[in-house]
Amino acid sequence: MTRVRLGMVGGGQGAFIGAVHRIAARMDGAFDLVAGALSSNPERAAASAAELGIRSYADFADMARAEAARPDGIQAVAIVTPNHMHAEPAIAFLNAGIHVICDKPLAATAEQAARIAAAVRDSRARFFLTHNYSALPMVREARALVAEGAIGDLRLMQVEYLQGWLADAAQGKQAEWRTDPARAGAGALGDIGTHAWQLAAFVTGRVPARISADLSSMVPGRPVDDDARVALRYDGGAKGGLWVSQVAVGQENGVSLRLFGTKGALEWRLQDSERLILTPKDEPARILTRAQDRSGSFRTPPGHPEGYLEGFANLYSDIAAIIRGDDSHAARVPGLADGLSGMAFIAAAQASAARDGAWTEVKS
Amino acid sequence: MTRVRLGMVGGGQGAFIGAVHRIAARMDGAFDLVAGALSSNPERAAASAAELGIRSYADFADMARAEAARPDGIQAVAIVTPNHMHAEPAIAFLNAGIHVICDKPLAATAEQAARIAAAVRDSRARFFLTHNYSALPMVREARALVAEGAIGDLRLMQVEYLQGWLADAAQGKQAEWRTDPARAGAGALGDIGTHAWQLAAFVTGRVPARISADLSSMVPGRPVDDDARVALRYDGGAKGGLWVSQVAVGQENGVSLRLFGTKGALEWRLQDSERLILTPKDEPARILTRAQDRSGSFRTPPGHPEGYLEGFANLYSDIAAIIRGDDSHAARVPGLADGLSGMAFIAAAQASAARDGAWTEVKS
Amino acid sequence: MTRVRLGMVGGGQGAFIGAVHRIAARMDGAFDLVAGALSSNPERAAASAAELGIRSYADFADMARAEAARPDGIQAVAIVTPNHMHAEPAIAFLNAGIHVICDKPLAATAEQAARIAAAVRDSRARFFLTHNYSALPMVREARALVAEGAIGDLRLMQVEYLQGWLADAAQGKQAEWRTDPARAGAGALGDIGTHAWQLAAFVTGRVPARISADLSSMVPGRPVDDDARVALRYDGGAKGGLWVSQVAVGQENGVSLRLFGTKGALEWRLQDSERLILTPKDEPARILTRAQDRSGSFRTPPGHPEGYLEGFANLYSDIAAIIRGDDSHAARVPGLADGLSGMAFIAAAQASAARDGAWTEVKS
Amino acid sequence: MTRVRLGMVGGGQGAFIGAVHRIAARMDGAFDLVAGALSSNPERAAASAAELGIRSYADFADMARAEAARPDGIQAVAIVTPNHMHAEPAIAFLNAGIHVICDKPLAATAEQAARIAAAVRDSRARFFLTHNYSALPMVREARALVAEGAIGDLRLMQVEYLQGWLADAAQGKQAEWRTDPARAGAGALGDIGTHAWQLAAFVTGRVPARISADLSSMVPGRPVDDDARVALRYDGGAKGGLWVSQVAVGQENGVSLRLFGTKGALEWRLQDSERLILTPKDEPARILTRAQDRSGSFRTPPGHPEGYLEGFANLYSDIAAIIRGDDSHAARVPGLADGLSGMAFIAAAQASAARDGAWTEVKS
Repeated sequence: MTRVRLGMVGGGQGAFIGAVHRIAARMDGAFDLVAGALSSNPERAAASAAELGIRSYADFADMARAEAARPDGIQAVAIVTPNHMHAEPAIAFLNAGIHVICDKPLAATAEQAARIAAAVRDSRARFFLTHNYSALPMVREARALVAEGAIGDLRLMQVEYLQGWLADAAQGKQAEWRTDPARAGAGALGDIGTHAWQLAAFVTGRVPARISADLSSMVPGRPVDDDARVALRYDGGAKGGLWVSQVAVGQENGVSLRLFGTKGALEWRLQDSERLILTPKDEPARILTRAQDRSGSFRTPPGHPEGYLEGFANLYSDIAAIIRGDDSHAARVPGLADGLSGMAFIAAAQASAARDGAWTEVKS
Repeated sequence: MTRVRLGMVGGGQGAFIGAVHRIAARMDGAFDLVAGALSSNPERAAASAAELGIRSYADFADMARAEAARPDGIQAVAIVTPNHMHAEPAIAFLNAGIHVICDKPLAATAEQAARIAAAVRDSRARFFLTHNYSALPMVREARALVAEGAIGDLRLMQVEYLQGWLADAAQGKQAEWRTDPARAGAGALGDIGTHAWQLAAFVTGRVPARISADLSSMVPGRPVDDDARVALRYDGGAKGGLWVSQVAVGQENGVSLRLFGTKGALEWRLQDSERLILTPKDEPARILTRAQDRSGSFRTPPGHPEGYLEGFANLYSDIAAIIRGDDSHAARVPGLADGLSGMAFIAAAQASAARDGAWTEVKS
Repeated sequence: MTRVRLGMVGGGQGAFIGAVHRIAARMDGAFDLVAGALSSNPERAAASAAELGIRSYADFADMARAEAARPDGIQAVAIVTPNHMHAEPAIAFLNAGIHVICDKPLAATAEQAARIAAAVRDSRARFFLTHNYSALPMVREARALVAEGAIGDLRLMQVEYLQGWLADAAQGKQAEWRTDPARAGAGALGDIGTHAWQLAAFVTGRVPARISADLSSMVPGRPVDDDARVALRYDGGAKGGLWVSQVAVGQENGVSLRLFGTKGALEWRLQDSERLILTPKDEPARILTRAQDRSGSFRTPPGHPEGYLEGFANLYSDIAAIIRGDDSHAARVPGLADGLSGMAFIAAAQASAARDGAWTEVKS
Repeated sequence: MTRVRLGMVGGGQGAFIGAVHRIAARMDGAFDLVAGALSSNPERAAASAAELGIRSYADFADMARAEAARPDGIQAVAIVTPNHMHAEPAIAFLNAGIHVICDKPLAATAEQAARIAAAVRDSRARFFLTHNYSALPMVREARALVAEGAIGDLRLMQVEYLQGWLADAAQGKQAEWRTDPARAGAGALGDIGTHAWQLAAFVTGRVPARISADLSSMVPGRPVDDDARVALRYDGGAKGGLWVSQVAVGQENGVSLRLFGTKGALEWRLQDSERLILTPKDEPARILTRAQDRSGSFRTPPGHPEGYLEGFANLYSDIAAIIRGDDSHAARVPGLADGLSGMAFIAAAQASAARDGAWTEVKS
């Protein structure tokens, strides 16, 4: 089986998420990274590409054009730039017929998101969004259990993503663009709130109809939200809460999801990502592990901890299969719809907060 | 040291919390239960008293009068009736100069609460409210740490109390009165919401100024709330969340408190009640146990788990000391102010929910 | 129901386990402590008794005689002295027809143990030994599960009791007698090793046939063992390990029991004493709580943590029932046989260690 | 930086550990797998190589010869065959001057191990042994802490590796060779006992001088041990225990290490591999995470769980660095000495067990 030829936009020296995408693409041997426009700084772009031994471009538009023209050009591109720099390269590669693997959130603004959506509709290429947490085996198992009725009808949902690394005024490259409204679009809401939103939707199979949001900037002078508490109402009466924070001191990546239904409950925490607690009503809680998982989304027997990078790699493996023509895994790979839903969530949360938490419809 | 002579109103055969109060009163040998009006059913009252070997009264008013007149009459009375039956006996015993140890919440209605408050002000006797969770050693230690500045200025607070036992239409004596608006006043909000509210206030030393509440009755036809999500705003910018539920399937008594401040974080869970996690900013989390506790609120060395009943007994021991004239422990025993604060919380939450979650001032 | 009249030998001011016995006896209101020979120091004995408001004796022999002669004399006596002081009072009270509730281990020497055994056989009174851990609800549930075949045939057992409080040269009253061979008989082996031995026997229903022991005195100059590793062989091929230590720095009371059988596994830890993990072969682990317990050995609904003192009180409640003539609980209250088994364990461990760990038969 | 050209012996279709080595080699982009003798079955060897797109050899001896002769031949080879098939290929590649990355244990017999040792001594190539657990970041941090004196002088060590997958008579390829004395050499002792032995030695920096072993075959008719309990004595008085089992029902990979010294304690568990508990004497336990780790052995910020594969990849990255000439990481990569120590452990354990647990010197 030949490897999928992959390009990358962003992810030059010093970047975080670009390196993660590269590891994920490498892990199962399904991709070859062969080209990149790794930085908007031409020298750093060239140096970074040289380090990786790949073709280097100073400009993503040139890259899209040139790669589309080569017989051995890239088949897919990973876009790992800051949020405001997703739309232009995504559109360029989609227009060139090259599949796009885009980091989340979809974009920094609704206008950018709409243009990406239009390009996806007009392109023969596919669009993927790397909401990696939903690719972890026990999360996929949770989704299967909910779909099978293991917890009955959903009544209560609580999703959290707590970090503490921005508890002080931002320092460093990673912190800087994430707290710049122009580049990030939103703060915690966009960076980790969309992860939480997608995780809950992925597992429950449902999207809240209305939300009430309280956004805070706990660090004086910070121009974006660094803490967001959002109450959620689903059609039919179920309710939920979403809490994300980047000022929760001591929390490293406190992702958790709790569901309570008429017949049972499910609980999952990233810190203990290989275990899923299922509590059927009036029965003891059960600790599910990969011995019970049916998604096949792992590489080693249960008890050998897999984690964040393996989840990311699960997405890449599914994407490779889809690119090779096997669409059977497509339902579990996030894409445009998830991206648009995340943007609708951000917009509704900001609108609700602007009206002091008034219940606001999520238009997706 | 002679024991404090104790009476009880409510707590006849089949009652839950009355038995808990009796164990708590007995544990440290500071009380003798000598009299009771244990049931509104005269036969059950008599049978229950005979089983305990105490003086029996068919009526609490008679009891207050008679006991006040005896040279060996009770010095304090525990009121362990349903919420709507707190006010009348509390007032009768306060008027008779007998100390009152009242179960929470203070009352079923604001009117009842106001009359209790007036009686407390007019009486030479003391009034105590058994918010037992705040008497657990590591909770007391948490309060001391916050007061000393261990977490800096509070930014984020999350308190939860999740139960699943009312996930279906109520059955049994305990469930019945708790879901009857006339007897309970409120549902989960009153029964466990006031515990959560007091726990957060006790540890943080602060009371939220405004709240936004979403109350639900998840079980069809239930006339009271069985799930309450409340957003909290403190003066000065700190924010919080309070979530209580009685339909969270599989949760037995999921009480937890999480605090994040400018300099550190604290986390405590009832299920692991002997451990308190303190995370100073940029340092490893520390697992505090009773080896670190300074409250003296325990009977055995660390590592011998103490729990719910011991916490309850801590309150009784403090109350005995206060009754004997040592007021040094008074600051940590909940009383009228806590009761009124709880009633203000219920009222504000119901008012906010009636206006679809509008931010509502807590008037206490 | 009238209370059982209780006396106490030992347990004067400053004692630890005497206070625990008193709380346990009080908790369920089944006993009245009315008399005591609380200290070998007559002044402390008198002062301690006055504090408790009970009849005081300077001498346990006088007490046994006098109480047996009174119509309202004690029906049972708790013996809470150091190990070497168990035999004489136990024999005196047994001879006087008064039930004995003795702290563990049975005695400091085999000779003392044999004399107690003879006295028990000649007396119409009962003899109880307070191995309290085996009275915790989830431990009793574990025993029931094993007896029902939930784990199939036992293959592997591991029991541990780790403490760190004697990591340095002993200081203080509690440490002193426990590290004095004359008063304690053995070190960690007697003090906590017998607890571990009894816990394993109680749950598995089986006693190892042969053991191989490695005893250490990790603190230089300590005349008794402070760490004991013992390998165990059961008839029929099952094997086990027992590890107790008093120099395991940071361990408060790390009691744990793990069992693996042909059909399943069980795990219990004192630190999380309300949860029992049952893993049927090839199925997810199940977290059992008191919602699943069938022993009735608790006072509050599941989720309200009960602990060490409640376990101790479970023994006292069972003992009260037995004294009142209900023998149905006798099978779960430790007694002479457990005491003799503990002494046989100590003797075999010391003999094995003296022969460099040679496998040694346990003669009980 | 060019990639290290890697070959593989074993690891054809259906193999477990070969796939793990390939992922580990790919993860950080430091290796290119280019050739293999993937199976002793020529057809499977060819099919497996075709699937991976690499040069295929039917025979490892041919491969060693041919690759050594090519200018673009492999620089290193991973040997991932069953234990009895380590020696011949290892020697062939060492003789050809090609670095060897060998799976553990070193060999099936002492004679094979001795021949490997001789070949290592005679070769200019390096020899690495993939004891992967010791490459996990928090394990490396544990080693650093011990070396710095964080726990003082070691007193007590307990290491465990518990699995349950062989609780019944073996089925399947993985189980078969592991329970065949000719191919495996030893059972649990070799397969996971050597991991436990190396893990303890790596972290403590010490190797026990004498051991006493009890080996069992819990499954009737099994010709190798499936459970091993080993008592350990270090020179200077420290003691330890090693327990490995493959019949511990419900255990997936229960690896744990506990150390107690004169000044503190350390605890680590594979299931929670990103956290290390350090308890300084008389202080609260501290939960160390990768935020405290100083080994640099990770790819993502703390809180993004890394695990088994990342640990394995850490070894491969270090090996790549060493092959490229940077020896600074060599001290933390296991090699021949670890392999010989593991063989000495197996031999001593079998000798001790044959003499009913007599204390036996470990000759390494």
